[in-house]
Amino acid sequence: MGSLLIKDVRLDDRITDILIADGRFKSLEAPAGTVADKVIDASGMAILPPFYNTHTHAAMTLLRGYADDMPLHKWLQEYIWPYEDKLTPQDIREGSRLAVREMIKTGTVFFSDMYFDIEETVDVVRESGMRAAIGVTFVESHSKSQQAEKLELLKHWTDPTGGRITLTVAPHAVYTVGPDLLVRCADTARSLGLKLHIHLCETRKEVDDCLAEHGMTPVRYLDSLGFLGPDVIAAHVVHVDPEEAAILAERGVTISHCPCSNLKLASGFFPYKLLKEAGCRITLGTDGASSNNNLDMREEMKFAALVSKACSGNPEVMPAAEAMDMACRQGAEAFGINAGVIAEGKLADAILVDLSDVRMQPCHHLLSNWVYAAGSSCIDTVICDGNILMEHHEL
Amino acid sequence: MGSLLIKDVRLDDRITDILIADGRFKSLEAPAGTVADKVIDASGMAILPPFYNTHTHAAMTLLRGYADDMPLHKWLQEYIWPYEDKLTPQDIREGSRLAVREMIKTGTVFFSDMYFDIEETVDVVRESGMRAAIGVTFVESHSKSQQAEKLELLKHWTDPTGGRITLTVAPHAVYTVGPDLLVRCADTARSLGLKLHIHLCETRKEVDDCLAEHGMTPVRYLDSLGFLGPDVIAAHVVHVDPEEAAILAERGVTISHCPCSNLKLASGFFPYKLLKEAGCRITLGTDGASSNNNLDMREEMKFAALVSKACSGNPEVMPAAEAMDMACRQGAEAFGINAGVIAEGKLADAILVDLSDVRMQPCHHLLSNWVYAAGSSCIDTVICDGNILMEHHEL
Repeated sequence: MGSLLIKDVRLDDRITDILIADGRFKSLEAPAGTVADKVIDASGMAILPPFYNTHTHAAMTLLRGYADDMPLHKWLQEYIWPYEDKLTPQDIREGSRLAVREMIKTGTVFFSDMYFDIEETVDVVRESGMRAAIGVTFVESHSKSQQAEKLELLKHWTDPTGGRITLTVAPHAVYTVGPDLLVRCADTARSLGLKLHIHLCETRKEVDDCLAEHGMTPVRYLDSLGFLGPDVIAAHVVHVDPEEAAILAERGVTISHCPCSNLKLASGFFPYKLLKEAGCRITLGTDGASSNNNLDMREEMKFAALVSKACSGNPEVMPAAEAMDMACRQGAEAFGINAGVIAEGKLADAILVDLSDVRMQPCHHLLSNWVYAAGSSCIDTVICDGNILMEHHEL
Repeated sequence: MGSLLIKDVRLDDRITDILIADGRFKSLEAPAGTVADKVIDASGMAILPPFYNTHTHAAMTLLRGYADDMPLHKWLQEYIWPYEDKLTPQDIREGSRLAVREMIKTGTVFFSDMYFDIEETVDVVRESGMRAAIGVTFVESHSKSQQAEKLELLKHWTDPTGGRITLTVAPHAVYTVGPDLLVRCADTARSLGLKLHIHLCETRKEVDDCLAEHGMTPVRYLDSLGFLGPDVIAAHVVHVDPEEAAILAERGVTISHCPCSNLKLASGFFPYKLLKEAGCRITLGTDGASSNNNLDMREEMKFAALVSKACSGNPEVMPAAEAMDMACRQGAEAFGINAGVIAEGKLADAILVDLSDVRMQPCHHLLSNWVYAAGSSCIDTVICDGNILMEHHEL
């Protein structure tokens, strides 16, 4: 990991030279004459934080477009699950590889995953130079020995990259994991200092079934088990009432908002204003490419912002900078990654965006253009941990 | 205009050679040995219909990102209108040029415009090779002599391209044009055989104000004036009741649905299911880049489909093929353009999409990938009227 000098780059409203060394932003105003192992001429480009995708199923990219425009139940039972039953570890590797290529091309440097055969995905991420939090998924239907094996894996795993990859403990959802296993997952995560990753309140049915089975909504049920805390990343969180929003905020739960998936599966409209005003940390995720159908966080920001405005009847809700913050800094911070903003001392994760692209012109406001007008093809270069993952559109 | 042979291209689920001559699709299964003035090797690409954008304000691309995240009233009065007051014909030309470049790059070959200084936009379209229906805009606040001048322009105008450009008569809206001028516009359009282009029921306020002023909702008011007919393209149509949907369907009005603009300005959710089931022709528009903030019809299709599913609580609403049909064939047909589908005898408008792009892989279903997963950067080549407007990403 050498030093990197990004010359003549636009940072906010000024043009500057930026020095990266030891994987961190060393100087945002490198003096003339600064030398570095590698120099990038970034004239005509802006530097922006890259994306941190807090909920996906990377290998499901194999199922992109496999089954669309149908109800969730039919989609899962007749298409997704039978397909998944046939996936081999080699398929998981191929799917993860496709996902990682798409993510880097679209400016994402980190993803929080939940799937199976995680060794394959870990290895693909290791090779790629990205960051990831790979979920070890728990469902009740796995055998006791499978579950014990997973717990062992969590205890004895070491990160092959020395800092870019962590594991998470990922009980799938309240309707696929019983209370004992949920508690065991939480205890394991807390004893090992890992995050917990779970689907929560995605559909009305999930809430109704939980009420029928446990006499409580999913948020109250998880809270009664002591599951909720600042180490929990809850994906979706579409169907909650104000009291539940307050519980999530008080426990410090991070929410992964997945607008495209919620809309495409007609799961409902995310209550952004309610959760934001309750004080929850809200991050952004794409969900898997089988229900989105891509991993493009720029597009996801636009969906999040526009739909939140329409739902609240107020165009001032979620301005461009807030959408960016959700997709970048909040996502990084939720996973304890000291990045997501371009600032001295922060880990050197960044993208360079081509301002000559027709979609970025004219440039009255950089962030407005980026969130509302751009396409991921405006991304010229992607940097993660001080290393270049894509340069001039080439991986 | 010579002949063009597109070799080894994917059309639906087969690989074929396609011959274009005299601006039309001559053969979708050109035999081996077919010769042409120009040959495109389209192996690894799919041919799809391009987009017909039925509502935009091209020159407003100059105002992209100029004012965002604020209420409509403030947006118009404090930002958009003062800016527009300063625009010169040269600015209109620059804005139109930027718009045309963005539209071609994102696969659009036709747009229905509504703005001013139309000679500039007409000239830019003439040069570009695109098609357009350029609206001559009427507002009550123009002087009588300005209005008379516009009526004269409409009567004496001839298309400098011999077929690619038409004018439309474009009274801005019921709140900016009085009943006499609305009727004069309709009469003029009908006597000249031109389309009428109007904003309709975009906001709740428009409906409430119309009720207060005329004792009728905008749809009923326009119908009482004899304005509505199969030559009317009505943009937005967000706030209508079932009876109004039936009136629009019965009169044969074409609707231009602009999902991004409606969401971003928090105007409301488009009642897709209501209007579709009433039997209305629904097409797709981007609106101006000042309220979108781009002219990317692929992104617009995804917004239209996903938000319609969520609004109706049914993921089967607006499947991918229906979104495509709306953005392509319906838009072309509404303007009497015999195009929008790849079929022998149709005008030769098409795009070639790169199937090797990571977002198009794997390819279980071509249209699902195109509507839900792709980005406009997957577009390699754009053809309009048998001529190549972009080849291998180069304009």
